[in-house]
Formats: sequence, C-alpha cells, structure tokens
Amino acid sequence: MARMATETRAILYGFWLSSCSWRVRAALHLKDISYVERSVDIVNKRSQLTDEYRVINPSQKVPALIIDGATIIESMAILQYLEDTRPKPSLMPRTPILRARMREICETVVSGIQPLQNVGLLSHFDSTDQYKNFTKYWTERGLYSLEDLLQKSSGQFCIENQLSMADLCLVPQLYNAVTRHKLSLDKFPTISKVYETLLEEKTFSETHPENIKQKDM
Amino acid sequence: MARMATETRAILYGFWLSSCSWRVRAALHLKDISYVERSVDIVNKRSQLTDEYRVINPSQKVPALIIDGATIIESMAILQYLEDTRPKPSLMPRTPILRARMREICETVVSGIQPLQNVGLLSHFDSTDQYKNFTKYWTERGLYSLEDLLQKSSGQFCIENQLSMADLCLVPQLYNAVTRHKLSLDKFPTISKVYETLLEEKTFSETHPENIKQKDM
Repeated sequence: MARMATETRAILYGFWLSSCSWRVRAALHLKDISYVERSVDIVNKRSQLTDEYRVINPSQKVPALIIDGATIIESMAILQYLEDTRPKPSLMPRTPILRARMREICETVVSGIQPLQNVGLLSHFDSTDQYKNFTKYWTERGLYSLEDLLQKSSGQFCIENQLSMADLCLVPQLYNAVTRHKLSLDKFPTISKVYETLLEEKTFSETHPENIKQKDM
Repeated sequence: MARMATETRAILYGFWLSSCSWRVRAALHLKDISYVERSVDIVNKRSQLTDEYRVINPSQKVPALIIDGATIIESMAILQYLEDTRPKPSLMPRTPILRARMREICETVVSGIQPLQNVGLLSHFDSTDQYKNFTKYWTERGLYSLEDLLQKSSGQFCIENQLSMADLCLVPQLYNAVTRHKLSLDKFPTISKVYETLLEEKTFSETHPENIKQKDM
C-alpha cells in the first residue's frame, strides 16, 4: 500500500499588512523553506481574536509558524529558530560584535518602533490625530537611532554586505512608515539608501505585502 | 617602569527603575562579569537627553554597556553578546525548540509589554488616567500570553529548571507591573509561582532595583 506523503511544508499564519509577518516571510524565502501562507485578517475581520485562531496562537497575534511539528510564535523567536535549524544561508554575520550591531538594529525596530505604531493602539486614543502624533513621534525617534546605527554598520545592507535579520526587520518597518504613516525619509539618507537597495532584492520584492494582498483578494 | 593596569571592568549605564537595565545587570551577575554601574536618571533629571550621554548612546536610552572596547546598546543585543563571548554559565537552553520557547517569552515582554508601559509615554496622553488604562491593558494582555507560555515551558524557572534570558526579561517586567503599576498577579498562577521562585535567586536579589536605588541616593 502506498504510503501517504507527509505534509512537510511549513504553514505561516500572517497578514499582508503585518510587518512582523513580512519578517518571517522574507526569512522563509531567503532560506528557501517550502511554506504556505494562511491569511489572518487582523485589521478588518479581526480574525486573530476568533476561537479558531486562539487554538493556534493563544497570544492572538500574527505571525505564527507551524514547522517541524511545532507551532512557534513571535517573529524574532521564529527567525532565530530557522537560523538554528537551517543555518544556511545564514541570517547573521560571523563575529559577535557584528551580531551585536545587527541586534541593536533589530531591537530598535522590534521594541522601539513596531509596538508604538501598531494599528491595534488606535482605539486607545481619543482621536485619530492623537494616535497619529504618537506613532509619528516614536517612529521618527526610532529612525534617528537607526540612521546613526546604519552610518556605523551598513554597506549595501544594514550590516556590511550580507543580508541579515536586521534587514528583515528594517524593510517591513520602513514600508509601514512610508506607506501607512506617510513619513518622509528625507532626514535619513543612510536609511533611504539601504532601503532602496533592499527593495530590489528578491527576498523583499517576492515577499512584498502588495503581492500578498493580491493573493488574499 | 610599571605598566598601568588596564581598566578591564565593564561599565553599565543604567537606572535603578529601568527594567531593561535590570535585564543586563542580572546577566552580568549570572555570568560573574566584573562591572561598575553608572546611574543615568531617566525619570527625574532626564539625564539620557544630555549631550554628555548622547555621545555614549545616541539613542538616548538605557542601558548601554561598554565592554571589550566597544559600546553596545539595546538590552537584548547586550545579553546575546555576553552569551556569544562568555558562554558559561549559559543563558540559553540547549535545544532549538527550547530556545524558541525562551525567545517567545522574551519577545512577549520586550516588544509586547515593555514599550507599552514605559514611563516615557506619559506625556503623550491627555491624562494620567488615560496613560494608566493604556499601560494596564497592554501589560495584562501580555501577562495572559505569558501565563499560557509558562504553563507549557516552565519548571522552577521560565524554561524548565535552567535560568535563561526569559527569566531575565520576566522578573524586571513583573516588578514594574506589581510595584509601579499596582497590578495583581492573582489571575496568573503560573507566572506568580515562577516569579516568587526567581526573586529568591541571588541573580535577582543581589541586582534588585531597591538595592541599586540605595546606592544611587
């Protein structure tokens, strides 16, 4: 009797507009890991709050990745797990100090900007204007830090000339800043230059939210 | 001629009330790394905004660690750098999946709670009550996620019975939640149990903010 093929593809629960989902989507692409994406509409349908999704991710956020028989949540935990289990091509520079430089950039995005511009914050403010001022302030403050960090570490990419986790954090956040929050990058020449280069990379062009959105429609 | 002894002690720029500083302080203690702490009063004097500190950390936040001739910012970048360069005792479990479980907890604190209860947010709200409701909502939402994660992974500590980065993130955040934001942990029995155990560990009792505060006075 023929044995059924086991489903070996990873499953990414994400959303086209979610910057944290894009981090993971880009890592899966870069490491050439076979996966299928299932859309969880966190904006209009608020599908992350359903009982069905709660079983997959009790934290009720995207992304979540099912891989190797386990469900892993939180994008940075997912990236590092993929790096630990599928080390090539690597998402990290070789030396401890360059890895620290990479993580400074990651954390500036992950804890310094992303949580403070999240669409989920909107309902906590008295007005859309108050929310917009808040997100603009924190995003710009983060961008000033990133400009300084990239001046020291960047080549073609965030850390010299190797794609790394820093790029996977940077690109989705800049897309949000520019597209959703209408911020200008004029004051941030180093960021702008690296961003333009990165958008040309297949890792980002082929996982771009505008493409994912098309598939969801 | 006698050669001058080189200053080999690390320098931690931190503040007694800063949860991110405590993460690093605890890691330095756990790894028995010789260091001196310099206080940067981020609450009353706003010393992080001075030109003097800007030279040390252009992001104008604590912590920053000077070690091995380099200045490293962002607490999670610092923890991982210490782990990479001084691997014993390790701050991480051995297997990729347990490391992923550890990082799920870290990121829930680092991006899910800490940025959304930061004292720096206060001036962006119309009233202290609005700020308090905001911090309470996001802290509690994070605690529900942590309770679920810890139910699956904890033993004595966050990840089974080994101290890890997850504990270094958890304890300072809970101290903030309970002491500063006056939140009750009654709804979170697993978190409460692990927290009580962790507070008895020297890594936390000897680096506790109340001790650091005394030295600053």
